[in-house]
Order: sequence, then C-alpha cells, then structure tokens
Amino acid sequence: MNGKSVAIVGASGAVGQDFLAVIAARELRPKSLRLLASPRSAGRRIVFRGESLPVESLGPESFRGIDVALFSAGASVSREHASRAVAAGAVVVDNSSAFRMDPQVPLVVPEVNPQVIREHRGIIANPNCSTILLVLALWPLHRAAGLKSVVVSTYQAASGAGQQAMLELRDTTAAALRGERIHPRILPQTLAFNLFPQVDVFQPDGYTKEEDKMQFETRKILGLPDLPVDATCVRVPVERCHSESVAVQLDRALSVAAARELFADAPGLELCDDPAQKKYPMPLSMAGRDPVAIGRIREGRVFAPGLTFWLSGDQLRKGAALNAVQIAELL
Amino acid sequence: MNGKSVAIVGASGAVGQDFLAVIAARELRPKSLRLLASPRSAGRRIVFRGESLPVESLGPESFRGIDVALFSAGASVSREHASRAVAAGAVVVDNSSAFRMDPQVPLVVPEVNPQVIREHRGIIANPNCSTILLVLALWPLHRAAGLKSVVVSTYQAASGAGQQAMLELRDTTAAALRGERIHPRILPQTLAFNLFPQVDVFQPDGYTKEEDKMQFETRKILGLPDLPVDATCVRVPVERCHSESVAVQLDRALSVAAARELFADAPGLELCDDPAQKKYPMPLSMAGRDPVAIGRIREGRVFAPGLTFWLSGDQLRKGAALNAVQIAELL
Repeated sequence: MNGKSVAIVGASGAVGQDFLAVIAARELRPKSLRLLASPRSAGRRIVFRGESLPVESLGPESFRGIDVALFSAGASVSREHASRAVAAGAVVVDNSSAFRMDPQVPLVVPEVNPQVIREHRGIIANPNCSTILLVLALWPLHRAAGLKSVVVSTYQAASGAGQQAMLELRDTTAAALRGERIHPRILPQTLAFNLFPQVDVFQPDGYTKEEDKMQFETRKILGLPDLPVDATCVRVPVERCHSESVAVQLDRALSVAAARELFADAPGLELCDDPAQKKYPMPLSMAGRDPVAIGRIREGRVFAPGLTFWLSGDQLRKGAALNAVQIAELL
Repeated sequence: MNGKSVAIVGASGAVGQDFLAVIAARELRPKSLRLLASPRSAGRRIVFRGESLPVESLGPESFRGIDVALFSAGASVSREHASRAVAAGAVVVDNSSAFRMDPQVPLVVPEVNPQVIREHRGIIANPNCSTILLVLALWPLHRAAGLKSVVVSTYQAASGAGQQAMLELRDTTAAALRGERIHPRILPQTLAFNLFPQVDVFQPDGYTKEEDKMQFETRKILGLPDLPVDATCVRVPVERCHSESVAVQLDRALSVAAARELFADAPGLELCDDPAQKKYPMPLSMAGRDPVAIGRIREGRVFAPGLTFWLSGDQLRKGAALNAVQIAELL
C-alpha cells in the first residue's frame, strides 16, 4: 500500500475504523487516503496521523485515481460499487460476502493461499471473519496430517454485527443490571446476559448463512472442495473477539506435542496453551491484537486420529481489517 | 417425598434455594423439612410456604429421623456426611460428584434410567448439570437410531459455579461498564464481556474434569460404556441456564422431521425449533423453567447418518434441584 492511493469504503464503521488502526500499526504510507461512506456519515471528519480527513459520500466518481479500494460496507454496497472501482483502475479488496464464492474471485488468507492473488481480475475477496480464524488453524494441520472433517461451534462477539451492535450490548446490559429490559434494535435477540444460535439468516436446510460460509469458504481457501465442515454459529455477550471450539478428523496421527510445535511456528497464530497456569485463549486477552490465539489442544475423543482445540481472535483485526490490508500489501 | 422427613444439605446455596422452589412448584408435602448448611450460614432463616425455617449447622446428629436427604454442598461435604445420613436410616440423593462414578451408586436421570434406582444402597447420585441436559436429548435418539458418538461444546452460565459466581458476574459487568476492572475472586477468570474454556480443573490429558464428566457420566446413564463423547466446556457471561451445541453420529438414518417428533414427545424436553420465526432455545427464555429446550435440529454435515442440534436449559432446575427431587419422588 506504500505510495498508493487508497480508498476505504465504509470508513465510519467498525471495520473501517480498524482499517485505519491497522494501517497506522503497520506503518504503511499510502500516497493518499480517501474515506468513503454512506451519505448519512458523509461530512464527518476522522483524525488519522494528526490529520483530520473528511468522510466523503460514496458515489460514481469516488474511485478516480484510486489504486486500492478496501470495501467493508456490506454486500449490497460492494455489488453496486466494486465494479465501478475496478473500471476506474483500482484493485478492490472486498470484505463483504458479495464475491467470495465467485469462482473468478480469489478468496484469500495471506498465511494460507497467497498464491491465488495473482489470478485476480480486479476484485479479491476477504473471507468471513469466523472462517479466517478457523483456516489459520486448519492449514498447518492439513499440511502435516491431512484434514478429513471439521466440527466447529463458535462464540461470536457483538462486534461481528457492527459498531451499533456493540453499543446495543452495552446498553441492554446496563439496563438488565438496573432490572430493566430494552428490546434489541440491531441484533435479532437481546444479548444482555444471553446468547443465541443465530448469526446471519437461516437457509432452507436449517443451517445459517454464517454456518454455510464456514463450510464453503473454508473449502475454497484450503482447496479442499469436499471437506465436510459442520458449524454451529452462536452470538455471545462479548464485545470483541470471536472464539471457536474445534474438533478435527485427520488422515494421519499427529501428537498433541507435534501440533503445538506446528501452531507455534504457524504465521498468524499464537500458541497459548498452558492450562496448569490457566493460560488458554480468551476474547478479553485478544481484543485489539493481531494474532489468533490457539490452545486447549488435546487428543480427540471422537475422531481418531484427530485433535480438539480452542481458538480466540479479534475478528475485526485478523478477521477483517488486518487480513484485507495484508492482501493489499501483497498486491 | 410426601409425608417424609426431608433434609436439605446446602440449603443456603443456589441449588438449595432451588430445591425449595421445586418442592413448592410440585406441591410436595414433606412431613418435615430440615435445612442444613455450613456453620457460616447457620442461624439464618429461610421462609418457605409462609413459615420461617431455621438453617441449622450440619453435624453428626443432623440426620436423626430423616427419610430423605438432598445433598448439594460440594463433594467433600458429601464424602464426610452422606454415610452418616445413610447410617441414620436416610436415603441420600447426592448432587455432588463424590459418588457418581462409584459402580455401587446409581446415577439417575428419571426420564432416562429410572429403573436403576432400585439398586441403591442408601446413596443415589444426581449427575453433573451439563450431562443431565445432554442425556435428555441423547436418549430418544439412541433408542430410535443407535448412538455412535457425540461432539459437544457447552455455553455454561455463571450459576453453575454457584450463587457467588452469579453475583461476581453482575459486579464485574457493572464495573466493566464504568470502565473499571475488578479481579475475580470466585471464578478463575473475569467473566464480564468475556468467556473462557475452563469449567472445573484440568486433567493430565488436557481435558477438564467437567469434560470428563460429560463423557463418563453419559456412558453410565445411557448404559453405553464405550460411547465416545468429545466435550469442550466453556463458561459464558450468562447468569442462569447452560446451552450446548451438539453433533451426534447415529447407527441408522433418522430424518430431521422424525427427530423433531421424537423430541416433541420426549419427557423433560420442549421442542423449540422454528428458525424462520427466530425460535430456538436461549438461556434467557429458559431461566427458572423445568424443561430443556431443543432446536436448530438439522442433518449433520460431518456425521452421516447424524444430526446437529442446540439445547438450552436451567441447570439449577433440571440440571440439579429438579432432577434430584424427581429421584426422591421415585423412591
């Protein structure tokens, strides 16, 4: 991204804010930075590196002169504007679900399949946040011992539903502590001292779209078109960071010790596995951090050979903004 | 329990309080009710059916004249006092882990294996709360299609760690909303807007005791000594009610529609499975209620034949007090 003209679409949202945080943290020096958002947010100013940047309304002319456009404003905005950005000469890194399963669009986690970026035709898709966290752990296992199947249950933070959902969690929790009940406006159910097995909408077979993404995006990223992934996605009353409970079936035996070594060496992962010292991944430890923490690694009791483990990562960071910026860096 | 002299050991604790609520709700009429607790709680008075009952200090003479003693004061109290109660002529229904895996002690969920109560020699064990919720769902599946293996991830409320943990969740959450941080005294980690994969202590193989209970107690209750149960137990910032994400492998195919019918007819379960109407089990809907709600029932993607589903239930009720009282009713 150094020396390039960069646009951020959805600059006022939760991921948009993290795009800026990640660009600052990685000391990237774009030639220019254009902040784009819906007309509702246009006119606001966002301070970045001591400079007050205007948030501009997203329109047909927004991408003139832009080299890289980072999109994170939902699938409908991407469907409407990504091709305009490409026509204007930009490469789009899209954080929405709009193009992820398009066979002509690379779906990239840089630590796993950076080579597919070369095949892009203007748009590169950033995977679903829960999927990114998962494949970081699956990839080293697959290379070492062959992956046969995955059963995963998620513990997804409010932040996955955006900044308004994070505020709603705080507001409804404060109300619950006062003995009041506020009805949710953003989330499908109240999240205060509650949780619910619905992330995204339901499909006819009873799985949610989020659960589908975890199967179909994982297959595409790992290049394993038949990999069975049985996912249950659950929203929990946590502000930031998704966690996942994972059981995998492997082709070949892999000891817990060997898996620990693999994970310790794997880019993007941080081994956090010392139960005797009460050390295991937790959302509160990972908020605002780049790596995905992995721990509770143990021999599977159902899958043999297999492993069962637990991971936690800031899905606004590695699950969204960081992964997209990493893709842009590879361009 | 009608017409019997009943003692409640641990009367001032979270489960103890629920013993009284369940006895009232089921309109049981014990001949007498003796409330026992540690010397610390002795002297308090608890109002039950308009009568103020004294909490007495648990001692060697506590069980004179008692027919049924409901224990819920931890394994060490049970180990010390249960045999005294039996020697005094009482039948003990023990809610701790002290005797559950003793081959001479029946481990009972009345909807599943009431027949083993007959074999008791003075002590009957009440299973672990997460296990009770799980086996209620597994039993009808096993009878209809044969159970081969279970992968389960739990979402366990603060109440599972007792009344003090529930208060700690509220206090630390209020502090977090004020931007302060209170260090936990009861739970191993802060639970405010956080969660952690530790319930009970760790074993040498990396599983926790709670995860072991879910395998070994499930085997004993279902009479399936080799059933593999791969459990990950997680504490979540919910006040009451445990939830579980479950994937099961079956011997014979069972359609989702057939499973729904089975669950709808199964005692102790409540079918709550209408995703289109955003109806699925949630802790907040089940608090203070007797049944265990089951939903999100769908064909498994890893296990074939297999089913994946979700359940939620008040583990102080069915997971502890209610189950123990049901056992006492069967005596």
